[in-house]
Parts: sequence; C-alpha cells; structure tokens
Amino acid sequence: MIRAMNRPFDNCLSGGFGPGAALLTDLYQLTMMQTYYEQAMTETAVFELFFRRLPPGARNFFLMAGLAQALDYLEQLRFTPEELQWLSTQAGFKPEFIDRLAQLRFTGDVWGLPEGTVFFADEPVLRVHAPLPLAQLVETRLMNLVHFQTMIATKAARAVLAAPGKVLIDFGLRRAHGAEAGVLAARATWLAGMSGTATVLAGALYGVPVMGTMAHSFIQAHASEEQAFEAFARSHPDNTTILVDTYDTEAGARKIVALAPRLARDGIRIRAVRIDSGDLAAHAFRVRQIFDEAGLKDIKILVSGGMDEFKLQELLRDKGAPIDGFGLGSGMDTSYDVPTLDCAYKLQEYAGKARRKRSEGKATWPGRRQVFRTLDTAGRMQGDVVTLEGDPQSGDALLQPVMREGRRLEGQATLSQAREQAAVNLGQLPVALRALESAPLYPVRVSDRLRALADEVDRGIAS
Amino acid sequence: MIRAMNRPFDNCLSGGFGPGAALLTDLYQLTMMQTYYEQAMTETAVFELFFRRLPPGARNFFLMAGLAQALDYLEQLRFTPEELQWLSTQAGFKPEFIDRLAQLRFTGDVWGLPEGTVFFADEPVLRVHAPLPLAQLVETRLMNLVHFQTMIATKAARAVLAAPGKVLIDFGLRRAHGAEAGVLAARATWLAGMSGTATVLAGALYGVPVMGTMAHSFIQAHASEEQAFEAFARSHPDNTTILVDTYDTEAGARKIVALAPRLARDGIRIRAVRIDSGDLAAHAFRVRQIFDEAGLKDIKILVSGGMDEFKLQELLRDKGAPIDGFGLGSGMDTSYDVPTLDCAYKLQEYAGKARRKRSEGKATWPGRRQVFRTLDTAGRMQGDVVTLEGDPQSGDALLQPVMREGRRLEGQATLSQAREQAAVNLGQLPVALRALESAPLYPVRVSDRLRALADEVDRGIAS
Repeated sequence: MIRAMNRPFDNCLSGGFGPGAALLTDLYQLTMMQTYYEQAMTETAVFELFFRRLPPGARNFFLMAGLAQALDYLEQLRFTPEELQWLSTQAGFKPEFIDRLAQLRFTGDVWGLPEGTVFFADEPVLRVHAPLPLAQLVETRLMNLVHFQTMIATKAARAVLAAPGKVLIDFGLRRAHGAEAGVLAARATWLAGMSGTATVLAGALYGVPVMGTMAHSFIQAHASEEQAFEAFARSHPDNTTILVDTYDTEAGARKIVALAPRLARDGIRIRAVRIDSGDLAAHAFRVRQIFDEAGLKDIKILVSGGMDEFKLQELLRDKGAPIDGFGLGSGMDTSYDVPTLDCAYKLQEYAGKARRKRSEGKATWPGRRQVFRTLDTAGRMQGDVVTLEGDPQSGDALLQPVMREGRRLEGQATLSQAREQAAVNLGQLPVALRALESAPLYPVRVSDRLRALADEVDRGIAS
Repeated sequence: MIRAMNRPFDNCLSGGFGPGAALLTDLYQLTMMQTYYEQAMTETAVFELFFRRLPPGARNFFLMAGLAQALDYLEQLRFTPEELQWLSTQAGFKPEFIDRLAQLRFTGDVWGLPEGTVFFADEPVLRVHAPLPLAQLVETRLMNLVHFQTMIATKAARAVLAAPGKVLIDFGLRRAHGAEAGVLAARATWLAGMSGTATVLAGALYGVPVMGTMAHSFIQAHASEEQAFEAFARSHPDNTTILVDTYDTEAGARKIVALAPRLARDGIRIRAVRIDSGDLAAHAFRVRQIFDEAGLKDIKILVSGGMDEFKLQELLRDKGAPIDGFGLGSGMDTSYDVPTLDCAYKLQEYAGKARRKRSEGKATWPGRRQVFRTLDTAGRMQGDVVTLEGDPQSGDALLQPVMREGRRLEGQATLSQAREQAAVNLGQLPVALRALESAPLYPVRVSDRLRALADEVDRGIAS
C-alpha cells in the first residue's frame, strides 16, 4: 500500500504549513532579527540542535526523525504579503525590517543526522550555518519538527524492540495533539519499524501503509452483532478484521466461529479479530482456544486499548499471550510517559568565533561539532566521540551535509530507506540498551580538542 | 494587540487543515461508511463526545475549548478530487462509494458546550446528529480538536488559579507536538486566562496578544552583555525585557542598573528582566533587591524554565518570590503531567432507538443527554444533573445548539467572550476545586430517567 504521492497534499502540512510557515516562530526571533539587521550583525552563525539528556530511567537512546520536514520548511520559508502586512501593524517593527523580511529566503548550509539513526545525549543532530538573523528565525520551527518526531520515533522503537515480529499499528490520531502531530506520529512510528497507521492522511502524504478494523459504534448501530459482522465481511472481503468485545468477547468469538464457514463458501476469509477491553491476555487465550478448537487457526488476534511498550512486554514476554498484533494509540502518539524532551538549539559560533552558554545547569559545548561512532567486531555500537569538525576520530562520522546554500543535497534517504536505517541501527544497539528498563549510559566521550575549545571560550568571556 | 484577522491565514490550519481535512480520519471510518451505504444505513445517528473521567489526583475539573475549530472543520469538510483519486487507488473502496464521497458535505445538527465552560467527567460536551455515515466519519477529527484544546485550557486554568494577578505567557511552540498543537495551545491558554503567547502565528490567526523577550544566543552573539542589552533596548524602546542569566544573573542585573540611567536620558525605560536558570526564587529575591536599592522599583521580573502550575504555586505561595510574570513552555503546551485524557465519541441513538456500549469497564449512558447546573446563593457551582433531552431540571442547561443542517448558528462566542466565560466559570468553582491538590469529586447526578433508559436498552440487547 506504500505510495509516493507527496505533492498533491503537502502544501498545508509540515513542509510549508501553508502560508503560515514564516510566522510559526516566537516573537523574540523577530525582535532579535530587527536588532541584528540594525547592527549589521549578519555574519555567519552556526547553531546546533541537540538533546541535553536522555529522560532518566525512561529512554536508553534516541532515534532521529523529522529531518525531511525540517528541510522542507527551510526550502519553503518565506513571508507572504498578508503576513508582512499583519506584522507591520504590530508594535515595534520598523518598515525597513518588514522590507528585509519580504526578501528573506533560507540561504544557509545544513548538516544533519540521517533519519533512523540512533543517537545519545548532547550529540548534535542538526547544524545550521547561516547569516545570524536567518539562523535565529528558524530555531522555533526546527525544534518543533525535530523534537516531536524524534520523541515519537524513539518511543515507537522501544515498542518494536518489545514486540519482535508482531504487527504494530498506530491508532493515535484522535488524541494526538492536533492534526500535524497525528500525521507526523504516523510517519515517525512507521520510520521506527511499526507496521502501519490508521491515519488515512499519512498514507496519502507519506505512503505509510494504512490499516484499520471497525468501531464499537458499527456494532451498536446494527440490530445484532452477527448481522454487523457479516455485513462488514461481505463489504470488505479483503480486510475482515472484526471487533468482538462490544458486548461479550468470547460470545463474539463464537459468533465468528458460526459465521466463518458461511463466509468461506463465498470465498471470504476472516483475517483477524480485535479485542479492546477487559483483561486482554485472558481474553486472548480464551479466544485463541475457541478459534483453534474450531479449526480457525489462521484468524489472528489484535488487541488495543491503553497499549504502550510496557504493556506489550507484559502481554508477550511475561504472560505469553497469543496476540499477533497491537493497536497503539494515545500512549504512543503523545509519548505519554515522556511527552517532552530537553532539546536545545544553541549558538556555537558567530563570525568565526566559537561561543557557548554558561547559564547554571545549562552550559553548552562550543564550536562546530561532529560525532564519530565505532562498532565492535560483532557489529554492535561500542562508543561515540563528540569532537570538532576537522578532528577525525576512528569510526564513522554521523553528521552529514544535507543542504547547501538553501538547496537540499541529492541522495538523501527516502522514508523507506530511513526505516531500513532504523532497523539497522536498532540491530546495532548494545543488548542492555535494547531493554525497556534503564541501562548503564552508552559511552559518549568528549574529545580533548572540544574540551580545550570550551576552556578557551570561557577565558575569553568578559566577566 | 488583539485583532480579528482570521481569514488570510486559516486555510491551512485547524478549520480545514487545507485540502487534508477529509483524510484526517481513521481508515475504519471510511471502511465502515462504505458498508453503511451498502446497507442503506443512513438514518440519523446521535453521537456524543465526553471525557470518561478526571485524571485521578491531577485535575478537579475540565475547561471546554476547541468548539470553534470543530465547527470550522464540519463546515469546510469535503473530499477534493485529488483525495478521491488517491482513495480510489486503495484496496477495498468501490467506485460507487468514491462517488458518494465526492458529494459529501456535513448536513447535521450539533449541540455544544460553549468554550470556557467548566465541566466534569461523563458530561456530554458535543452532540452530533447526522446521517450515520457522516456522523461516523467526523469522529476522529472532532476528538482530535476538542481533546487537545480542552486538555490545554484545563491545565492553563490551573496555572491561572495558582498565580492570581500575574502575567502568564505561553512559550511552548518549540516543544509543542507539531505546528497545530503550538498554535492551538496558544489559543487555549489565552482562553483559559493566560496573558498572551510568544507564538506569532497565534496572534495573526486568533488575535492572541503576542509577547516576547530575547534569547541567550542574542547575548552570546555580542561581544559583551552590556552591548547586547543596550542594542536591544535602543532597537525596541517599547518592549525592553532583558535576559540576564546568560553568564551570571546578579551581575547581569547590575549591568541593567548601570545602563538604565543612560537609556532613561533617551526616553527608554527597561520594563522587565527575564531569569531562565538556577534557583529562580533566590535569584528573583536578589535581583529585586538590586533593582530596589538602585531605585528601579518599576522593573518587573519574569522567570521561565520548567514552569507549570505547581512551580508557580511553590514560587509564589510557598516562597513568596518577588516574581511578576512567568513564561510557561513545554510543560504547558504538552500538558506533560497529563498529556492525554480519556475522552470518547459514542453512538447514543440510531434511527430513533437509544444505544449504549457495554464493553468491560467502558460502558456508556444511552440517548440524547443534557446537563443542568445549579449555583448556590453565593454564586458557586452546587451540582450538575445529567439527564435526557426533554427532562428539564432546575438550573441552567449547559449544552447549546451551535449548528443546524451544517450551518453554524449565529451569536456564538468570540474568543474574547469565551475567555470571559472562562473567568466567570472559574470564579464559580467551589473553593476546594480551585486548588491544585486533589479535591472531593464535584457532585454530578445521573437522573432517574437516564438510568431507566439504560436499563431498557440493556434488556433490549440480544445476548
């Protein structure tokens, strides 16, 4: 079902967010920009986006996602006449500044971590080189895009690791935080290795496989469950997943047993049932037994309702429940145990001079950084080194050039390729980090050259 | 700063979410619709949207928000030719179904709780009367819109109650879950009584007052803090909030003391400083003292960084810190302690016959419901009764007709009016419910007639 039909729909989504893109920023970016222009502070600034720390006890790694939308945004960034008109009515903005905004396009270079790459705390995932006002303006939306998808992809990767070989479907649109969250969560969960989504627009936009079953209201609207089951199966002979828990789960399963031979005579096969309430493990065992005893060994069992990676592990590993697939909704699309990550977009260099922030508890490393990763002989990640550009270390450099002078570079991963990259990277994780439980921190070393630069910058700051 | 310029920008936001609106749904809504049409099940269905329970210990009430966007969506709902073309390539959809979708418009009636109304668990907040396939299709997006804004407005109301008279600014766009979440969070937090937002697009779209300060990068990009402070103040003589914690907070404040007289000679007044790191109460006390001793009693102190309603209460009530305003970011815009609420959209009636779901632990009340609320003599909420339409109780009926035959009814609240409604409703809350701490449940009684109908429906269900 995967298709690549991005163009007809994307004018209103994350790429441009339609004409609103340029105003998707914090007011202070615009007020600072005006001052920068007035002071002719338009030399090249280097900003890096990174995640300060792994949520303690809750995540052992991050999985990169959202780079494609970040580049879409940069490519399409511009102020429309309506937006400029509105800005000109706001206090504090001068006509010469509005005129500059009218000309504004993103002309910078960008380095990024390919989507589907595993990474760790304090490693740069995006590096922007652009004239200071421009690099400042884009902070808000770049963070907004990369933070969310990375957070969701990271949680989805945990679910994938907890349920090897199972079908995992994103059911989260209704309780995702708005439309864009729902659509981008479908993308990020698929990238991380889940099987598909119920969100139709994510199929149209990104080619994520779209999957679905039926709702309780469908059963309730019919005079009886039997009638509802049969009507649905005959209308959708290729997609017969039947919801059996509206009134009584095992009674529902027995109705399937009664119905299946009649449908089979017309060449219709019931593929799966869904259970959405009660003790899911107990119901799954009983329903599996009902089907097996009736010779319906092929009918799969899908469960939903309050699912997350811990529930998957409990149902599969701890209880050994005979469940083939899972619908993951609110818990996944809101990353509800960790609904926000501590990420930042910080000035690393301005006009060729390295910078750092030293605020209490929030100090940052200066300069243009790069990350190198080594694998052990078994192909598992062994350790990363964060250093400065031009200070090669053993292993592979993770940050890649992705945009030059405002134009996206060729040869970047498609969503399917990013999904493959995620599978490869998750396979390279040290065993302890693959567990849901808290693992010892993965070794990330800061190079001597980077430490030396930080000292230099500190000594240079007037106190 | 409040303006009403909704039109130039809203084609890509929650109203229509551009051409994507109709595909912002779950696949099963479309598969069920096809079966409904095939079975000629197109009689009127009544669905209700409600929140099953208050998050235990975390919320004492809900505050309604998102109705305006829900109605925008219903008014603008249609499938574009591109969307239909794409759907026709998906397995399982028949040409006659695609043809019906091409004609589809929302033609139903809607009842809703006015935005800014306080409500409680299991009370209907939206009631949709429409042909079954249509009422089914819109489930996903209606929940997506009302769930999110209500969740955010509810959390923001708690912050407003915890910080009476203080300036509360939404800083959350960068870590909100996508663009729409950021913009709608700005709307919902303002509706609930916060003072404004940093999100520029929310100003352009909804007229929410837009506010901002400066970032650490602005300071870092300059050769010295003094230079950065002065440049900013001279560029923005009407909006001089200065960030003082980049290197050393009290040293930053003393630089303000040195700078203020020089600026004052040019008619420029520093209005406020922002502190974003360290022990915020301790810094606020010391900075206040520095300013007061220098005769700068008018300079306000704004703090940010990890703020939520509990932090506000701790800083203000427990520590008595001299803080005038707060920036609330990730914690607010993701509602991070409760990032999802248990809401549902359930079939109450089909073809004139009441329905209910009886799944384990998820049973619902049947029929067309209405809520009545009484106030005590002091004007405080005394108790609600949930009953059926046509069974008037003492007090005011909360659900109002808001759309008839697909057209919005006149006279609905503007966003400013919804904000006033919220202020009135929060003022009517019983005192215990205004606390952040868990309070005894507000009394919500289910009427005898509603209980009787539930029994009737149960007896009528074939087992």
